[in-house]
Amino acid sequence: MGAPKGPGLLRGLLGVMALRAGEHSQAAMNGPKEKVLTLDTMNPCVKRVEYAVRGPIVLRALELEQELRQGVKKPFTEVIRANIGDAQAMGQRPITFLRQVLALCVHPDLLSSPDFPEDAKRRAKSILQACGGHSLGAYSISSGVQPIREDVARYIQRRDGGIPADPNNIFLSTGASDAIVTVLKLLVSGEGRTRTGVLIPIPQYPLYSAALAELAAVQVDYYLDEERAWALDVAELRRALLQARDHCRPRALCVINPGNPTGQVQTRECIEAVIRFAFEERLFLMADEVYQDNVYAEGSQFHSFKKVLMEMGPPYATQQELASFHSVSKGYMGECGFRGGYVEVVNMDAAVQQQMQKLMSVRLCPPLPGQVVLNMVVSPPAPSDPSFTQFQAERQAVLAELAAKAKLTEQVFNEAPGIRCNPVQGAMYSFPRIQLPPRAVQRAQELGLAPDMFFCMSLLEETGICVVPGSGFGQREGTYHFRMTILPSMEKLRPLLEKLSQFHAKFTREYS
Amino acid sequence: MGAPKGPGLLRGLLGVMALRAGEHSQAAMNGPKEKVLTLDTMNPCVKRVEYAVRGPIVLRALELEQELRQGVKKPFTEVIRANIGDAQAMGQRPITFLRQVLALCVHPDLLSSPDFPEDAKRRAKSILQACGGHSLGAYSISSGVQPIREDVARYIQRRDGGIPADPNNIFLSTGASDAIVTVLKLLVSGEGRTRTGVLIPIPQYPLYSAALAELAAVQVDYYLDEERAWALDVAELRRALLQARDHCRPRALCVINPGNPTGQVQTRECIEAVIRFAFEERLFLMADEVYQDNVYAEGSQFHSFKKVLMEMGPPYATQQELASFHSVSKGYMGECGFRGGYVEVVNMDAAVQQQMQKLMSVRLCPPLPGQVVLNMVVSPPAPSDPSFTQFQAERQAVLAELAAKAKLTEQVFNEAPGIRCNPVQGAMYSFPRIQLPPRAVQRAQELGLAPDMFFCMSLLEETGICVVPGSGFGQREGTYHFRMTILPSMEKLRPLLEKLSQFHAKFTREYS
Repeated sequence: MGAPKGPGLLRGLLGVMALRAGEHSQAAMNGPKEKVLTLDTMNPCVKRVEYAVRGPIVLRALELEQELRQGVKKPFTEVIRANIGDAQAMGQRPITFLRQVLALCVHPDLLSSPDFPEDAKRRAKSILQACGGHSLGAYSISSGVQPIREDVARYIQRRDGGIPADPNNIFLSTGASDAIVTVLKLLVSGEGRTRTGVLIPIPQYPLYSAALAELAAVQVDYYLDEERAWALDVAELRRALLQARDHCRPRALCVINPGNPTGQVQTRECIEAVIRFAFEERLFLMADEVYQDNVYAEGSQFHSFKKVLMEMGPPYATQQELASFHSVSKGYMGECGFRGGYVEVVNMDAAVQQQMQKLMSVRLCPPLPGQVVLNMVVSPPAPSDPSFTQFQAERQAVLAELAAKAKLTEQVFNEAPGIRCNPVQGAMYSFPRIQLPPRAVQRAQELGLAPDMFFCMSLLEETGICVVPGSGFGQREGTYHFRMTILPSMEKLRPLLEKLSQFHAKFTREYS
Repeated sequence: MGAPKGPGLLRGLLGVMALRAGEHSQAAMNGPKEKVLTLDTMNPCVKRVEYAVRGPIVLRALELEQELRQGVKKPFTEVIRANIGDAQAMGQRPITFLRQVLALCVHPDLLSSPDFPEDAKRRAKSILQACGGHSLGAYSISSGVQPIREDVARYIQRRDGGIPADPNNIFLSTGASDAIVTVLKLLVSGEGRTRTGVLIPIPQYPLYSAALAELAAVQVDYYLDEERAWALDVAELRRALLQARDHCRPRALCVINPGNPTGQVQTRECIEAVIRFAFEERLFLMADEVYQDNVYAEGSQFHSFKKVLMEMGPPYATQQELASFHSVSKGYMGECGFRGGYVEVVNMDAAVQQQMQKLMSVRLCPPLPGQVVLNMVVSPPAPSDPSFTQFQAERQAVLAELAAKAKLTEQVFNEAPGIRCNPVQGAMYSFPRIQLPPRAVQRAQELGLAPDMFFCMSLLEETGICVVPGSGFGQREGTYHFRMTILPSMEKLRPLLEKLSQFHAKFTREYS
């Protein structure tokens, strides 16, 4: 191939740099008056925001797709977007029951159609009954339709072996991201050395770093242990906390379980240790549990922070503050486009909870279709319902295929020299470590790029495979990774993994 | 009746006070350790946020509904929520074509059903074609599905008599609120006397004050002229600006047209004057035009800021920065629950626009069903389409009824002594001025309440009518108002207006 140095790569790289440094301000070219809003005058916190999952590499992927459509010749025929956990975009079919109920809710004339099962109709009627004007077109109350919140509470109670959940502690949201940002927003205060610090895992899902940058809070990194399958180690939490106390006031600890981008599933012991640590150090716990249905590895099991917390008894169960997040975008349903989710808060100060409700009310309400999808996720058809068998079959098929793809990914990557991949125990991503030759690192540095960004951009230009560089999630200095979803269809995934491995070998030879 | 002093009123009032001052913190009652997150430690900007449209009066309305359901005896049989512009909650029926296309999009099996018109099927197919995996369950790009953005651009061009709109300048959003907050977020910078100030009308829609409080930006009030039907006066803009320059750096000017809560529709001359002012004073213009389809008064006409700006020619057309907002929640469709909207930016610095795109990408994408609704709003059936006649008839029926209700509201209120109501030229609200007797004002002050909050809370307890006090929107010192929607059905509206007028008379007698 030759190291990819074509105009495409250059354009991609220029995009990266322009977005980062903003040298391309058009201000001077637009007439006599300077704009009111320029890179120099705009919100500096927003400028610092980075979001790799949709960053320059994805913008370049979009351009490449356009070029392919226009007939430009490329060394590949399609761009494969393995950058984002978007199951249906990769061909996964929606769960039938879910879409039936949605159709009935948005167009109630269908309630008289013989083509819909009785339980879907019953469900749609009961949802509409709880909506203003019996329509999805009305606002709901800001925390979500009341019976849906109650169904969420029952779901949590079932999930957690009977430990009760209070609907008043549940707030529906516009995807999990919305709720995460809301809780972070409540936590941020102080200036300088008293500014709120928030502990987040490294590697992390970059919503966290982006939100903290926007809120001008202090990001406190704790490193997951790659050598031990991305385990979370309390000693490392303590190190991070103590160091951070020199320059900020750490007040919250975020945990992503199952891990994104790292795919580990935490043990019960680990969760207990984290809770004890948070309690002792007076940290508000944020548990990102959006992949709670995505656990594949034998011996791995999802334990919710809420359940472990409650089972630990007082003082943890009665005092430790916790917010747990869930979403309709992941799991077996993958309904990303509907933007549904919820947060459950535990042991939150009552007055703060009122403030949270007030804050959410400013945006009126989460989208009703997302609330409807959430309702089905937390309250699927029961064994006696006509839709039960099909629902279960569809659900199992998705989860079984994901499990097979998780295993395949680990296996193929680990056969490639210079790539090492931890087991994908859960979630939807592999985060393999790659070796990059010193000359590639040097070339990247000359271009002002992170070495793995250089690798991923070259991969995209050469193969059409779009993955996200590890530098977008954070990683130990001197190590390089990328995040790739396990979502491509089974037929596509194996050749994809092999193509990627071969590209890495070629890239390594090129720069050796 | 006796002045309403029952336990209900007291509970309502206590709610107001607790939410405002937060004296009811439970921290001390919850065991030995103080919570991490308390009213004292939480984000002080969030504490300052107020949002009257869903404030304590609405929480009390919810309680009252619950009490009615439980059989508690009240002087009324239902709570009438005239507090929020939520047409379908008040009984307005969804537009059929819109819901047909939505049903087809969420459940494509229906594409083979004979019960849907061909144009609805064609539309659904073309939308799905543009979605990832041909499904609403996939994320779209962050600025929205590309062909929908193109349809928005064509809509704007038609609306503005052929002045072109560029799809690249259009960003779909989660309702208009989301886009408004995003643009405000870009604008906020500086500290102390260099902190960004934003001019907003008084009375205003409280999203603005809430967002500015949350962003710690400086709210700069300019007063609309109640004596001249809430006209916007450039001399008043100038006064507000000059005064504000002492303590902040004013950088943006928000205009709501048609007005919320004030219902005025601005003349073309006024808009030109505002644009000249913004240009001379170097202010970024934000035009909240979500009621652009809601214009009722004879002689009133909606003029978009974009059109006026472009027709003014250079330097305005080529340099003045503008963001214009629209929504699917209002107009004739009232699809609030779907959370759809867009912003068009004009003359925005290219690098800033990239930053805006980046910022939006962190939240992934606006909900797809809301994008679909927006598509139909900007691209309704054409005269040759099978759904055209019904669509037009439904649209006209809604708008004609709103026009009649706007007129009726003005008329009935102006017949009542002590109530004076400007014409409801557009939007969905009346904002009548009420006289309150000095003893009522005094009693309110004793309770630590705004006098019109006291009036509205009493009204709610006595009649079940839920309206929002003028103090939640801002008003000239010493004047009192409330905002009431014109959305109740025609049969309900007249008795409602009369009941409210009678209550005001009674309240006035009570406290005289």
